[in-house]
Amino acid sequence: MVDIDLRLYVITDENLSLETGLMEKVRQAIEGGATVIQYRAKNKSSKQIYSEATALKKLCREYGIPLIINDRVDIAVAVDADGVHVGQDDLPVEVVRRIIGNGKIVGLSTKTLEQVVEANTLPVDYIGFGSVFPTTTKKDATLSGIEMLREAVKLSIQPVVAIGGINAENVDSVLQTGCENVAVVSAVFSADSPFKAAQLLKQKILKGRRWRV
Amino acid sequence: MVDIDLRLYVITDENLSLETGLMEKVRQAIEGGATVIQYRAKNKSSKQIYSEATALKKLCREYGIPLIINDRVDIAVAVDADGVHVGQDDLPVEVVRRIIGNGKIVGLSTKTLEQVVEANTLPVDYIGFGSVFPTTTKKDATLSGIEMLREAVKLSIQPVVAIGGINAENVDSVLQTGCENVAVVSAVFSADSPFKAAQLLKQKILKGRRWRV
Repeated sequence: MVDIDLRLYVITDENLSLETGLMEKVRQAIEGGATVIQYRAKNKSSKQIYSEATALKKLCREYGIPLIINDRVDIAVAVDADGVHVGQDDLPVEVVRRIIGNGKIVGLSTKTLEQVVEANTLPVDYIGFGSVFPTTTKKDATLSGIEMLREAVKLSIQPVVAIGGINAENVDSVLQTGCENVAVVSAVFSADSPFKAAQLLKQKILKGRRWRV
Repeated sequence: MVDIDLRLYVITDENLSLETGLMEKVRQAIEGGATVIQYRAKNKSSKQIYSEATALKKLCREYGIPLIINDRVDIAVAVDADGVHVGQDDLPVEVVRRIIGNGKIVGLSTKTLEQVVEANTLPVDYIGFGSVFPTTTKKDATLSGIEMLREAVKLSIQPVVAIGGINAENVDSVLQTGCENVAVVSAVFSADSPFKAAQLLKQKILKGRRWRV
Protein backbone atom coordinates (compact mmCIF):
# COMPACT_ATOMS: atom_id res chain seq x y z
CA MET A 1 0.00 0.00 0.00
CA VAL A 2 1.20 3.45 -0.92
CA ASP A 3 0.58 6.52 1.22
CA ILE A 4 -1.24 9.11 -0.86
CA ASP A 5 -3.00 12.39 -0.18
CA LEU A 6 -6.35 12.00 -1.94
CA ARG A 7 -8.09 15.09 -0.56
CA LEU A 8 -8.42 17.05 -3.80
CA TYR A 9 -8.35 14.48 -6.56
CA VAL A 10 -8.48 16.22 -9.94
CA ILE A 11 -9.36 14.17 -13.03
CA THR A 12 -8.46 15.52 -16.45
CA ASP A 13 -11.19 16.49 -18.90
CA GLU A 14 -11.32 14.33 -22.04
CA ASN A 15 -12.01 17.47 -24.08
CA LEU A 16 -8.61 18.95 -23.25
CA SER A 17 -5.47 18.06 -25.22
CA LEU A 18 -1.88 19.29 -25.48
CA GLU A 19 -3.11 21.71 -28.17
CA THR A 20 -6.01 23.08 -26.12
CA GLY A 21 -4.33 23.86 -22.82
CA LEU A 22 -4.29 20.57 -20.94
CA MET A 23 -0.89 21.26 -19.38
CA GLU A 24 -1.61 24.84 -18.39
CA LYS A 25 -4.95 23.91 -16.81
CA VAL A 26 -3.52 20.96 -14.89
CA ARG A 27 -0.68 23.18 -13.69
CA GLN A 28 -3.26 25.65 -12.40
CA ALA A 29 -5.17 22.85 -10.68
CA ILE A 30 -1.98 21.72 -8.93
CA GLU A 31 -1.01 25.26 -7.92
CA GLY A 32 -4.56 25.73 -6.63
CA GLY A 33 -4.16 22.73 -4.33
CA ALA A 34 -4.83 19.47 -6.20
CA THR A 35 -3.21 16.64 -4.22
CA VAL A 36 -3.36 14.04 -7.01
CA ILE A 37 -4.00 14.10 -10.76
CA GLN A 38 -5.81 11.36 -12.63
CA TYR A 39 -5.37 11.30 -16.39
CA ARG A 40 -8.49 9.96 -18.07
CA ALA A 41 -8.82 9.55 -21.85
CA LYS A 42 -11.23 7.12 -23.42
CA ASN A 43 -11.60 8.45 -26.95
CA LYS A 44 -8.04 9.30 -27.94
CA SER A 45 -5.50 7.18 -29.84
CA SER A 46 -2.91 5.32 -27.78
CA LYS A 47 -0.25 7.53 -29.36
CA GLN A 48 -1.98 10.68 -28.14
CA ILE A 49 -2.67 9.16 -24.73
CA TYR A 50 1.01 8.25 -24.41
CA SER A 51 2.12 11.78 -25.40
CA GLU A 52 -0.25 13.44 -22.96
CA ALA A 53 0.56 11.03 -20.12
CA THR A 54 4.29 11.59 -20.69
CA ALA A 55 3.83 15.37 -20.47
CA LEU A 56 1.59 15.09 -17.39
CA LYS A 57 4.07 12.82 -15.60
CA LYS A 58 6.79 15.40 -16.13
CA LEU A 59 4.52 18.18 -14.83
CA CYS A 60 3.38 16.20 -11.79
CA ARG A 61 6.94 15.18 -10.91
CA GLU A 62 7.90 18.87 -10.98
CA TYR A 63 5.36 19.50 -8.19
CA GLY A 64 5.79 16.19 -6.36
CA ILE A 65 2.15 15.29 -7.06
CA PRO A 66 1.20 11.70 -7.93
CA LEU A 67 -0.17 10.93 -11.39
CA ILE A 68 -2.71 8.15 -11.74
CA ILE A 69 -3.74 6.75 -15.14
CA ASN A 70 -7.33 5.74 -15.78
CA ASP A 71 -7.83 2.19 -17.11
CA ARG A 72 -4.70 1.87 -19.29
CA VAL A 73 -2.13 -0.08 -17.30
CA ASP A 74 0.21 -0.12 -20.31
CA ILE A 75 0.28 3.68 -20.37
CA ALA A 76 0.94 3.76 -16.61
CA VAL A 77 3.88 1.39 -17.05
CA ALA A 78 5.13 3.24 -20.14
CA VAL A 79 5.31 6.64 -18.38
CA ASP A 80 6.12 5.23 -14.91
CA ALA A 81 2.97 6.79 -13.43
CA ASP A 82 2.25 6.44 -9.73
CA GLY A 83 -0.80 4.29 -10.18
CA VAL A 84 -3.83 3.12 -12.09
CA HIS A 85 -7.51 3.75 -11.53
CA VAL A 86 -9.98 1.23 -12.88
CA GLY A 87 -13.74 1.03 -13.10
CA GLN A 88 -15.99 -1.99 -12.81
CA ASP A 89 -15.74 -2.48 -16.61
CA ASP A 90 -11.97 -2.26 -16.76
CA LEU A 91 -9.26 -4.84 -16.05
CA PRO A 92 -9.81 -6.71 -12.74
CA VAL A 93 -7.81 -5.07 -9.94
CA GLU A 94 -5.95 -8.32 -9.20
CA VAL A 95 -4.64 -8.26 -12.77
CA VAL A 96 -3.75 -4.59 -12.53
CA ARG A 97 -1.88 -5.21 -9.28
CA ARG A 98 -0.02 -8.15 -10.79
CA ILE A 99 1.17 -6.02 -13.72
CA ILE A 100 2.18 -2.84 -11.90
CA GLY A 101 3.37 -4.31 -8.61
CA ASN A 102 2.95 -3.37 -4.96
CA GLY A 103 4.86 -0.11 -5.14
CA LYS A 104 2.11 1.59 -7.13
CA ILE A 105 -1.38 2.89 -6.33
CA VAL A 106 -4.47 1.02 -7.49
CA GLY A 107 -7.86 2.67 -7.21
CA LEU A 108 -11.30 1.26 -8.03
CA SER A 109 -14.58 2.97 -8.86
CA THR A 110 -17.58 1.73 -6.90
CA LYS A 111 -21.21 2.61 -7.46
CA THR A 112 -23.04 0.44 -4.93
CA LEU A 113 -22.54 -0.57 -1.31
CA GLU A 114 -22.08 -4.17 -2.49
CA GLN A 115 -19.13 -3.04 -4.57
CA VAL A 116 -17.73 -1.12 -1.57
CA VAL A 117 -17.86 -4.27 0.58
CA GLU A 118 -16.32 -6.34 -2.21
CA ALA A 119 -13.52 -3.79 -2.60
CA ASN A 120 -12.58 -4.42 1.06
CA THR A 121 -11.30 -7.82 -0.09
CA LEU A 122 -9.40 -6.51 -3.12
CA PRO A 123 -5.80 -5.26 -3.50
CA VAL A 124 -6.75 -1.59 -3.85
CA ASP A 125 -5.35 1.51 -2.11
CA TYR A 126 -8.56 3.54 -2.25
CA ILE A 127 -12.00 3.48 -3.80
CA GLY A 128 -13.98 6.09 -5.67
CA PHE A 129 -17.68 6.24 -4.81
CA GLY A 130 -20.46 7.90 -6.77
CA SER A 131 -21.93 9.59 -8.63
CA VAL A 132 -22.83 11.55 -5.52
CA PHE A 133 -24.60 14.21 -7.60
CA PRO A 134 -25.73 14.31 -11.23
CA THR A 135 -22.77 14.95 -13.51
CA THR A 136 -22.34 16.13 -17.07
CA THR A 137 -19.00 14.28 -17.44
CA LYS A 138 -20.53 10.81 -17.31
CA LYS A 139 -24.08 11.05 -18.53
CA ASP A 140 -24.92 7.40 -17.79
CA ALA A 141 -23.54 7.51 -14.25
CA THR A 142 -25.44 5.77 -11.44
CA LEU A 143 -26.62 8.31 -8.87
CA SER A 144 -25.85 7.37 -5.27
CA GLY A 145 -26.57 10.51 -3.27
CA ILE A 146 -25.15 11.82 0.00
CA GLU A 147 -26.71 9.26 2.33
CA MET A 148 -25.31 6.29 0.46
CA LEU A 149 -21.91 7.98 0.46
CA ARG A 150 -22.13 8.19 4.26
CA GLU A 151 -22.74 4.42 4.34
CA ALA A 152 -19.89 3.79 1.90
CA VAL A 153 -17.46 5.70 4.14
CA LYS A 154 -18.56 3.60 7.12
CA LEU A 155 -18.31 0.29 5.22
CA SER A 156 -15.02 0.83 3.43
CA ILE A 157 -11.73 -0.14 5.03
CA GLN A 158 -9.97 1.91 2.34
CA PRO A 159 -10.00 5.68 1.90
CA VAL A 160 -13.09 6.80 -0.06
CA VAL A 161 -12.97 9.47 -2.73
CA ALA A 162 -16.39 10.97 -3.44
CA ILE A 163 -17.05 11.66 -7.11
CA GLY A 164 -19.77 12.96 -9.38
CA GLY A 165 -21.04 16.52 -9.76
CA ILE A 166 -19.10 17.85 -6.77
CA ASN A 167 -18.35 21.59 -6.75
CA ALA A 168 -17.69 24.45 -4.35
CA GLU A 169 -21.43 24.85 -3.66
CA ASN A 170 -22.10 21.27 -2.56
CA VAL A 171 -18.70 20.08 -1.29
CA ASP A 172 -19.57 20.86 2.33
CA SER A 173 -22.41 18.35 2.26
CA VAL A 174 -19.96 15.73 0.98
CA LEU A 175 -17.44 16.46 3.73
CA GLN A 176 -20.21 16.29 6.36
CA THR A 177 -20.65 12.58 5.57
CA GLY A 178 -17.18 11.94 6.95
CA CYS A 179 -15.69 11.56 3.48
CA GLU A 180 -12.33 13.33 3.45
CA ASN A 181 -11.53 13.11 -0.25
CA VAL A 182 -13.19 14.72 -3.23
CA ALA A 183 -12.75 14.07 -6.95
CA VAL A 184 -13.67 16.68 -9.53
CA VAL A 185 -13.46 17.18 -13.28
CA SER A 186 -15.64 20.01 -14.53
CA ALA A 187 -15.64 21.96 -11.22
CA VAL A 188 -12.00 22.70 -12.03
CA PHE A 189 -11.65 22.39 -15.80
CA SER A 190 -14.86 24.13 -16.80
CA ALA A 191 -14.03 27.07 -14.53
CA ASP A 192 -12.69 30.31 -16.00
CA SER A 193 -9.77 29.91 -13.60
CA PRO A 194 -8.90 26.30 -12.75
CA PHE A 195 -6.47 27.77 -10.22
CA LYS A 196 -9.15 29.66 -8.31
CA ALA A 197 -11.63 26.80 -8.59
CA ALA A 198 -9.13 24.33 -7.13
CA GLN A 199 -8.09 26.79 -4.43
CA LEU A 200 -11.68 27.37 -3.28
CA LEU A 201 -12.37 23.62 -3.15
CA LYS A 202 -9.15 23.01 -1.25
CA GLN A 203 -10.00 25.68 1.33
CA LYS A 204 -13.38 24.08 1.92
CA ILE A 205 -11.81 20.62 2.20
CA LEU A 206 -9.27 21.88 4.75
CA LYS A 207 -12.00 23.61 6.79
CA GLY A 208 -14.14 20.47 6.47
CA ARG A 209 -11.88 18.77 8.99
CA ARG A 210 -13.98 20.18 11.79
CA TRP A 211 -16.82 17.82 10.88
CA ARG A 212 -14.73 14.76 11.32
CA VAL A 213 -15.07 12.59 14.39
CA MET B 1 13.42 -11.62 -32.51
CA VAL B 2 10.91 -14.43 -32.36
CA ASP B 3 10.43 -16.95 -35.17
CA ILE B 4 6.81 -16.85 -36.27
CA ASP B 5 4.83 -18.28 -39.17
CA LEU B 6 2.91 -15.30 -40.53
CA ARG B 7 1.56 -16.85 -43.73
CA LEU B 8 -2.14 -16.81 -42.88
CA TYR B 9 -2.57 -14.06 -40.33
CA VAL B 10 -6.18 -13.95 -39.17
CA ILE B 11 -7.42 -10.86 -37.33
CA THR B 12 -10.57 -11.08 -35.24
CA ASP B 13 -13.66 -9.16 -36.24
CA GLU B 14 -14.68 -6.44 -33.78
CA ASN B 15 -18.33 -7.43 -34.32
CA LEU B 16 -17.77 -10.87 -32.79
CA SER B 17 -17.89 -11.50 -29.04
CA LEU B 18 -17.94 -14.48 -26.69
CA GLU B 19 -21.74 -14.40 -26.98
CA THR B 20 -21.81 -14.29 -30.79
CA GLY B 21 -19.43 -17.08 -31.68
CA LEU B 22 -15.97 -15.53 -31.48
CA MET B 23 -14.38 -18.69 -30.09
CA GLU B 24 -16.06 -21.08 -32.52
CA LYS B 25 -15.15 -18.95 -35.53
CA VAL B 26 -11.54 -18.50 -34.45
CA ARG B 27 -11.31 -22.24 -33.85
CA GLN B 28 -12.53 -22.83 -37.39
CA ALA B 29 -10.01 -20.32 -38.74
CA ILE B 30 -7.21 -22.16 -36.94
CA GLU B 31 -8.40 -25.57 -38.08
CA GLY B 32 -8.62 -24.18 -41.62
CA GLY B 33 -4.96 -23.19 -41.50
CA ALA B 34 -4.49 -19.84 -39.76
CA THR B 35 -0.86 -19.61 -38.64
CA VAL B 36 -1.35 -16.72 -36.23
CA ILE B 37 -4.33 -14.96 -34.62
CA GLN B 38 -4.48 -11.26 -33.88
CA TYR B 39 -7.11 -10.11 -31.43
CA ARG B 40 -8.32 -6.63 -32.30
CA ALA B 41 -10.94 -4.76 -30.27
CA LYS B 42 -11.20 -1.00 -30.29
CA ASN B 43 -14.73 -0.40 -29.06
CA LYS B 44 -15.09 -2.84 -26.19
CA SER B 45 -14.56 -2.26 -22.46
CA SER B 46 -11.21 -3.34 -20.99
CA LYS B 47 -13.08 -5.93 -18.95
CA GLN B 48 -14.58 -7.49 -22.09
CA ILE B 49 -11.27 -7.26 -23.95
CA TYR B 50 -9.55 -9.03 -21.07
CA SER B 51 -12.18 -11.80 -20.99
CA GLU B 52 -12.01 -12.38 -24.73
CA ALA B 53 -8.22 -12.25 -24.83
CA THR B 54 -8.03 -14.75 -21.97
CA ALA B 55 -10.33 -17.17 -23.82
CA LEU B 56 -8.44 -16.70 -27.10
CA LYS B 57 -5.08 -17.32 -25.44
CA LYS B 58 -6.39 -20.62 -24.08
CA LEU B 59 -7.71 -21.61 -27.50
CA CYS B 60 -4.52 -20.64 -29.34
CA ARG B 61 -2.34 -22.46 -26.82
CA GLU B 62 -4.44 -25.58 -27.42
CA TYR B 63 -3.39 -25.47 -31.09
CA GLY B 64 0.13 -24.12 -30.60
CA ILE B 65 -0.77 -20.98 -32.57
CA PRO B 66 0.58 -17.58 -31.46
CA LEU B 67 -1.86 -14.92 -30.25
CA ILE B 68 -1.03 -11.30 -30.91
CA ILE B 69 -2.93 -8.45 -29.25
CA ASN B 70 -3.69 -5.28 -31.17
CA ASP B 71 -2.61 -2.04 -29.51
CA ARG B 72 -3.24 -2.96 -25.86
CA VAL B 73 0.10 -3.92 -24.33
CA ASP B 74 -1.50 -4.26 -20.89
CA ILE B 75 -3.89 -6.90 -22.20
CA ALA B 76 -1.00 -8.74 -23.86
CA VAL B 77 0.90 -8.77 -20.55
CA ALA B 78 -2.22 -9.69 -18.57
CA VAL B 79 -2.97 -12.81 -20.67
CA ASP B 80 0.66 -13.61 -21.52
CA ALA B 81 0.00 -13.27 -25.25
CA ASP B 82 2.77 -13.94 -27.73
CA GLY B 83 3.01 -10.39 -28.95
CA VAL B 84 1.54 -7.00 -29.70
CA HIS B 85 0.64 -5.36 -32.98
CA VAL B 86 0.59 -1.57 -33.10
CA GLY B 87 -0.41 0.98 -35.70
CA GLN B 88 1.11 4.36 -36.42
CA ASP B 89 -1.33 5.95 -33.93
CA ASP B 90 -0.63 3.50 -31.12
CA LEU B 91 2.19 3.34 -28.57
CA PRO B 92 5.67 3.76 -30.14
CA VAL B 93 7.23 0.35 -30.84
CA GLU B 94 10.25 1.17 -28.68
CA VAL B 95 7.90 1.64 -25.72
CA VAL B 96 6.03 -1.56 -26.54
CA ARG B 97 9.30 -3.47 -26.76
CA ARG B 98 10.49 -2.04 -23.45
CA ILE B 99 7.30 -3.18 -21.70
CA ILE B 100 6.93 -6.68 -23.15
CA GLY B 101 10.58 -7.61 -23.56
CA ASN B 102 12.60 -9.32 -26.27
CA GLY B 103 10.92 -12.72 -25.98
CA LYS B 104 7.69 -11.43 -27.51
CA ILE B 105 6.57 -10.48 -31.02
CA VAL B 106 6.11 -6.84 -31.98
CA GLY B 107 4.42 -5.96 -35.27
CA LEU B 108 3.83 -2.55 -36.82
CA SER B 109 1.32 -1.40 -39.42
CA THR B 110 2.79 0.61 -42.29
CA LYS B 111 0.90 2.47 -45.00
CA THR B 112 3.67 4.16 -46.98
CA LEU B 113 7.11 3.22 -48.25
CA GLU B 114 8.58 5.87 -45.94
CA GLN B 115 7.08 4.01 -42.99
CA VAL B 116 8.46 0.72 -44.34
CA VAL B 117 11.98 2.18 -44.48
CA GLU B 118 11.58 3.70 -41.02
CA ALA B 119 10.43 0.32 -39.68
CA ASN B 120 13.76 -1.16 -40.79
CA THR B 121 15.35 0.81 -37.94
CA LEU B 122 12.77 -0.16 -35.31
CA PRO B 123 12.63 -3.12 -32.89
CA VAL B 124 9.85 -4.95 -34.76
CA ASP B 125 9.57 -8.60 -35.84
CA TYR B 126 7.39 -7.96 -38.88
CA ILE B 127 5.40 -5.21 -40.55
CA GLY B 128 1.89 -5.09 -41.91
CA PHE B 129 1.50 -3.20 -45.20
CA GLY B 130 -1.68 -1.92 -46.78
CA SER B 131 -4.49 -1.50 -47.44
CA VAL B 132 -3.62 -3.42 -50.58
CA PHE B 133 -7.26 -3.39 -51.70
CA PRO B 134 -10.31 -1.41 -50.55
CA THR B 135 -11.64 -2.86 -47.30
CA THR B 136 -14.89 -2.63 -45.41
CA THR B 137 -13.17 -3.31 -42.05
CA LYS B 138 -11.29 0.00 -41.98
CA LYS B 139 -13.25 2.49 -44.01
CA ASP B 140 -10.64 5.26 -43.71
CA ALA B 141 -7.74 3.02 -44.73
CA THR B 142 -5.06 4.37 -47.06
CA LEU B 143 -5.03 2.43 -50.33
CA SER B 144 -1.58 1.26 -51.42
CA GLY B 145 -2.23 -1.21 -54.22
CA ILE B 146 -0.28 -4.18 -55.48
CA GLU B 147 2.64 -2.28 -57.01
CA MET B 148 3.45 -0.43 -53.82
CA LEU B 149 3.25 -3.72 -51.92
CA ARG B 150 5.89 -5.12 -54.30
CA GLU B 151 8.16 -2.17 -53.41
CA ALA B 152 7.44 -2.61 -49.70
CA VAL B 153 8.54 -6.26 -49.84
CA LYS B 154 11.77 -5.21 -51.57
CA LEU B 155 12.48 -2.39 -49.12
CA SER B 156 11.65 -4.15 -45.86
CA ILE B 157 14.27 -6.11 -43.96
CA GLN B 158 11.44 -7.64 -41.90
CA PRO B 159 8.76 -10.07 -43.05
CA VAL B 160 5.85 -8.20 -44.66
CA VAL B 161 2.22 -9.14 -44.07
CA ALA B 162 -0.10 -7.79 -46.75
CA ILE B 163 -3.42 -6.50 -45.43
CA GLY B 164 -6.60 -4.88 -46.67
CA GLY B 165 -9.41 -6.41 -48.70
CA ILE B 166 -7.52 -9.63 -49.44
CA ASN B 167 -9.65 -12.68 -50.24
CA ALA B 168 -9.48 -15.95 -52.17
CA GLU B 169 -10.15 -14.16 -55.47
CA ASN B 170 -7.29 -11.66 -55.27
CA VAL B 171 -4.76 -13.42 -53.03
CA ASP B 172 -2.77 -14.76 -55.99
CA SER B 173 -1.98 -11.22 -57.12
CA VAL B 174 -0.70 -10.46 -53.62
CA LEU B 175 1.54 -13.56 -53.59
CA GLN B 176 2.89 -12.67 -57.04
CA THR B 177 4.50 -9.56 -55.57
CA GLY B 178 6.81 -11.78 -53.54
CA CYS B 179 4.84 -11.17 -50.34
CA GLU B 180 4.57 -14.47 -48.48
CA ASN B 181 2.16 -13.45 -45.73
CA VAL B 182 -1.47 -12.44 -45.89
CA ALA B 183 -3.71 -10.91 -43.21
CA VAL B 184 -7.47 -11.18 -43.40
CA VAL B 185 -10.52 -10.30 -41.34
CA SER B 186 -13.74 -10.44 -43.30
CA ALA B 187 -12.51 -13.00 -45.86
CA VAL B 188 -12.65 -15.48 -42.99
CA PHE B 189 -15.16 -14.09 -40.50
CA SER B 190 -17.80 -12.94 -42.97
CA ALA B 191 -17.73 -16.33 -44.72
CA ASP B 192 -20.49 -18.87 -44.10
CA SER B 193 -17.74 -21.28 -43.15
CA PRO B 194 -14.65 -19.64 -41.61
CA PHE B 195 -13.05 -23.09 -41.78
CA LYS B 196 -13.49 -23.44 -45.54
CA ALA B 197 -12.55 -19.80 -46.17
CA ALA B 198 -9.30 -20.18 -44.21
CA GLN B 199 -8.56 -23.53 -45.87
CA LEU B 200 -8.97 -22.11 -49.38
CA LEU B 201 -6.74 -19.15 -48.59
CA LYS B 202 -4.13 -21.41 -47.04
CA GLN B 203 -4.08 -23.68 -50.10
CA LYS B 204 -3.51 -20.70 -52.36
CA ILE B 205 -0.77 -19.38 -50.08
CA LEU B 206 0.99 -22.76 -50.07
CA LYS B 207 0.73 -23.00 -53.88
CA GLY B 208 1.91 -19.39 -54.13
CA ARG B 209 5.39 -20.56 -53.23
CA ARG B 210 6.09 -21.28 -56.86
CA TRP B 211 6.17 -17.54 -57.61
CA ARG B 212 8.90 -16.86 -55.14
CA VAL B 213 12.44 -16.23 -56.30
